[in-house]
Amino acid sequence: MGAIETKLQELGVELGESKAPVGNYLGCKRVGDLLFVSGRVSELKGEVGTDVTFEAAKEAARNTMLLILAIIKNDITDLDHIKGVVKLQGFIRSAPQFTKQPQVLDGASDLLISLWGEEGRHARTATGVNQLPFGASLQLDLILQMR
Amino acid sequence: MGAIETKLQELGVELGESKAPVGNYLGCKRVGDLLFVSGRVSELKGEVGTDVTFEAAKEAARNTMLLILAIIKNDITDLDHIKGVVKLQGFIRSAPQFTKQPQVLDGASDLLISLWGEEGRHARTATGVNQLPFGASLQLDLILQMR
Amino acid sequence: MGAIETKLQELGVELGESKAPVGNYLGCKRVGDLLFVSGRVSELKGEVGTDVTFEAAKEAARNTMLLILAIIKNDITDLDHIKGVVKLQGFIRSAPQFTKQPQVLDGASDLLISLWGEEGRHARTATGVNQLPFGASLQLDLILQMR
Repeated sequence: MGAIETKLQELGVELGESKAPVGNYLGCKRVGDLLFVSGRVSELKGEVGTDVTFEAAKEAARNTMLLILAIIKNDITDLDHIKGVVKLQGFIRSAPQFTKQPQVLDGASDLLISLWGEEGRHARTATGVNQLPFGASLQLDLILQMR
Repeated sequence: MGAIETKLQELGVELGESKAPVGNYLGCKRVGDLLFVSGRVSELKGEVGTDVTFEAAKEAARNTMLLILAIIKNDITDLDHIKGVVKLQGFIRSAPQFTKQPQVLDGASDLLISLWGEEGRHARTATGVNQLPFGASLQLDLILQMR
Repeated sequence: MGAIETKLQELGVELGESKAPVGNYLGCKRVGDLLFVSGRVSELKGEVGTDVTFEAAKEAARNTMLLILAIIKNDITDLDHIKGVVKLQGFIRSAPQFTKQPQVLDGASDLLISLWGEEGRHARTATGVNQLPFGASLQLDLILQMR
């Protein structure tokens, strides 16, 4: 078992099963040492701030990142090929008065940093939107640096 | 005529005329072997799911990609200089209940793959938004890999 | 004083103080010769087109870019290490009928071009959204090319 999967086990979390894209696109695409990862929506559905609480959304951000890691592993076979995290983009389906998008994304960022340490630290953009595929509560995409 | 333009002719589609940016920016910018392409809105206007049907939006995604290819050709002169597609980002102006953003984007992705084959396959993010420049129905931007 | 800071002085503007990220992320992250800069919201709050005028939003785009440059300088110590601007992404918190997102972003693009000249010209995407962190009026992120 690789170093990253060992850390996941120590954290007591499982990657779960990789899911196929819901359209004519790839889970991720590599160019040079950059890996561009497709946007993935949370399994959690509903508008954050009304249907869904802040706490539930933050937990969904972490869970969605685990789903993304499962998709990446399915493509690149070993998460240890990832050197670090470059950029995280998050879209939060936001009620008109909900403005804690950055705090929601910390659910995903904290996980990445606990797995990759200093190399896991990343640039980030957290944006509110009015709707997402499948009525999901949030959507994440990533740029990673590969070894 | 280059290979990509020959394929466009076989598909029975025309690039049409390149349009100038609507502000102080470039159609695309190259750095190393990556070409970052500016967001372009559809000529189709209106909210998808109310003013505009799903089918019209999907067709608009394809047409907007043709417009983007015209803009790129105007900049790089020959579409054969493009090696493949890295990442497509799409913003769909969505009615409160409209959640088929990925299926709309397939209109653009299908075209890219029919032109560049396996190298045309790409990572992608499909997001709903409440408004776009000129009241357009959707907006696409791209990262391409150059030869 | 470096060339870019001299130009800032000639323009009569100050960078102001760098601000720390509002969550578990970095101000910017470098990979190869690309610098990915985190999204930053404007100090100006409110929906553009209702709470906030177009003119105020355009000025806020310029001011937010100055804030971003202060953050970058804090990280890389000298703005002269920046070779040019690759891509600007802007999210404008838009009233239902507000569609001048590109013209708002010109406030940021004009500044970049006045500082870096031809190398400051960039690809760009201007999108409307319904809400942003802290209720801000707009949010900008950047990809830069480093020397």
